[in-house]
Amino acid sequence: MAGGVGSRFWPMSRTEHPKQFIDVLGTGRTLLQQTYDRFIRICRKENIIIVTNESYTDLVREQLPALPVENILCEPARKNTAPCIAYAAYRIAEKNPNAVMVVAPSDHLITKEETFLKAIRSCFRKAGTEDCLVTLGINPTRPDTGYGYIQFRESEQKEKDRRIKKVKTFTEKPDHDMAKFFMESGDFLWNSGIFIWSVKSIIHELERSLPEMATLFGEGKGIYHTGKEPAFIREVYSKCKNVSIDYAVMEKAENVYVRSSIIGWSDLGTWGSLYDHIRKNENGNAVVGKNVMVYDSKNCIVHMPKEKLVVIEGLDGYIVAESDGILLICKKQDEQQIRNIVNDVKVKRGDKFV
Amino acid sequence: MAGGVGSRFWPMSRTEHPKQFIDVLGTGRTLLQQTYDRFIRICRKENIIIVTNESYTDLVREQLPALPVENILCEPARKNTAPCIAYAAYRIAEKNPNAVMVVAPSDHLITKEETFLKAIRSCFRKAGTEDCLVTLGINPTRPDTGYGYIQFRESEQKEKDRRIKKVKTFTEKPDHDMAKFFMESGDFLWNSGIFIWSVKSIIHELERSLPEMATLFGEGKGIYHTGKEPAFIREVYSKCKNVSIDYAVMEKAENVYVRSSIIGWSDLGTWGSLYDHIRKNENGNAVVGKNVMVYDSKNCIVHMPKEKLVVIEGLDGYIVAESDGILLICKKQDEQQIRNIVNDVKVKRGDKFV
Repeated sequence: MAGGVGSRFWPMSRTEHPKQFIDVLGTGRTLLQQTYDRFIRICRKENIIIVTNESYTDLVREQLPALPVENILCEPARKNTAPCIAYAAYRIAEKNPNAVMVVAPSDHLITKEETFLKAIRSCFRKAGTEDCLVTLGINPTRPDTGYGYIQFRESEQKEKDRRIKKVKTFTEKPDHDMAKFFMESGDFLWNSGIFIWSVKSIIHELERSLPEMATLFGEGKGIYHTGKEPAFIREVYSKCKNVSIDYAVMEKAENVYVRSSIIGWSDLGTWGSLYDHIRKNENGNAVVGKNVMVYDSKNCIVHMPKEKLVVIEGLDGYIVAESDGILLICKKQDEQQIRNIVNDVKVKRGDKFV
Repeated sequence: MAGGVGSRFWPMSRTEHPKQFIDVLGTGRTLLQQTYDRFIRICRKENIIIVTNESYTDLVREQLPALPVENILCEPARKNTAPCIAYAAYRIAEKNPNAVMVVAPSDHLITKEETFLKAIRSCFRKAGTEDCLVTLGINPTRPDTGYGYIQFRESEQKEKDRRIKKVKTFTEKPDHDMAKFFMESGDFLWNSGIFIWSVKSIIHELERSLPEMATLFGEGKGIYHTGKEPAFIREVYSKCKNVSIDYAVMEKAENVYVRSSIIGWSDLGTWGSLYDHIRKNENGNAVVGKNVMVYDSKNCIVHMPKEKLVVIEGLDGYIVAESDGILLICKKQDEQQIRNIVNDVKVKRGDKFV
């Protein structure tokens, strides 16, 4: 899934060039490319499908030149994750009704790749042999109020992989006290947004929870993989609901499992989460940019265009980021303000800056 | 005089494009242009001469297109103010030995232009009728240790302009206690570096205080205003001393007068002095730049390229300046560090950045 906008990462992430297409970590590979690199180890490129907004098609082509062009699915509108996943599932089913699929955001960080692939393989086995939906859960390390939480219980059946548990409830973005309670109870995991299921199972659940949407995509039988697909999809997207898979399907389904995984995961949803995952020097400064010179400063995250000369003196705990000619200087503890600021920029200076 | 480098104003002021050529105040006119605009009110453009380093000739031409090209004097080397002034004085004397000249830096701020012009006119009368050197003195408003101080006493003769006093001593950059004493005594003025004298008087003093330099420039008789002038000047500059007019002449001369003036003057020598003279909003933020958006910040000076979008959140008392692709963020109270930082940048990144 590579259609998102990532507004909390402004100005690095912009509507015209969002986070997944950026080398956020300064490694030389964008997040989309890193996600591709991760999956190519267990999946042939012919079986990797990128669903993205049609305005990003060229970016995907540029960044993943090895990917077959027909594997880029273009969404004509932003309708959240349910239509995106439905589109991919119905299209895959047309070719192989017995396929098992992994759904993954393209803008997340996973540092423990081996452990991640092991987890995916285990979930694949589960989803390939049972009619169920499986999700990767992350052990919470702080009472984060920005994530969804998954409550689990021991499975009735004996799981081969003891890390796989039955899901009891989904809770979106709790308040701080509840998040603290969730974390301390030990019965909750963060929802990573990474799902594993057979196309049969997810289509079955779509038919149950989103029957209108299922009907719309189901009418594409015989159209997928043909020249009529784009026009058909445009029509479907104009009619279908804007809704997330979590809210519309996962929260209502019965046979949902979660596998707890320690995979060095972050959704890189905010500058702070990037700071947590980037290398810091002895003063706690995390710097991306070749010509950044820092004096008497600490706990800063600095993200600058490669060649730009930047001198920073006397800053403690700030985000300093420039992208595409837009500069942001913001106290790290105020990063939740960025979304409001971006709205203000949009109102006062126009769409082209956001 | 437009040959200086202005290193404390980095990164706005750079060796290749120093302060006098920059619209420091965001008014639409550079400091050089503002200086020209100030003098054109009392002086024909044929009589305005710009002495600058040869590397800035094109900048002067661009910024002052109305100025006759032959009025731009090129210095082949940086030799401080004495050679610069000697060059202009001898060259003017060749055409008009009875001329009276004003010498002024091109990178200063003067906000009270009427008062300034009145002061200049009065000094002109004094210098046009007596063999003397006159300088503009500024009433000190703080014990600044970066300026030169001029001690005065009442003139023996009765001055028509009672603001004109006889100079007793010059003192360069005193320490804080001495500067405080100077200020409180009421007998001291800041040395503005603006001088008024007849070419006869200054040449006479050069012959007395800098006889070698006077001989060198004196040999140009018949060469000034001809095609041989550039080669001659190159030869003279290779031989002549690097010294300031204050140290070499003013401090030793007898017949020196100062006129105290309240002209809204600043040498704009540091970011802090710019902050003092620029318009601030209700939070004490002084902003140059059309697209600078400031949230929860105070006492900052922000100087950005015209169109650049900049968002600043949660800063108190900082300099944020970008020029020609170089960004500086520095605590205002640490601005004296900038010179060291610039040296460090020079050592670590090379000359092209300073």
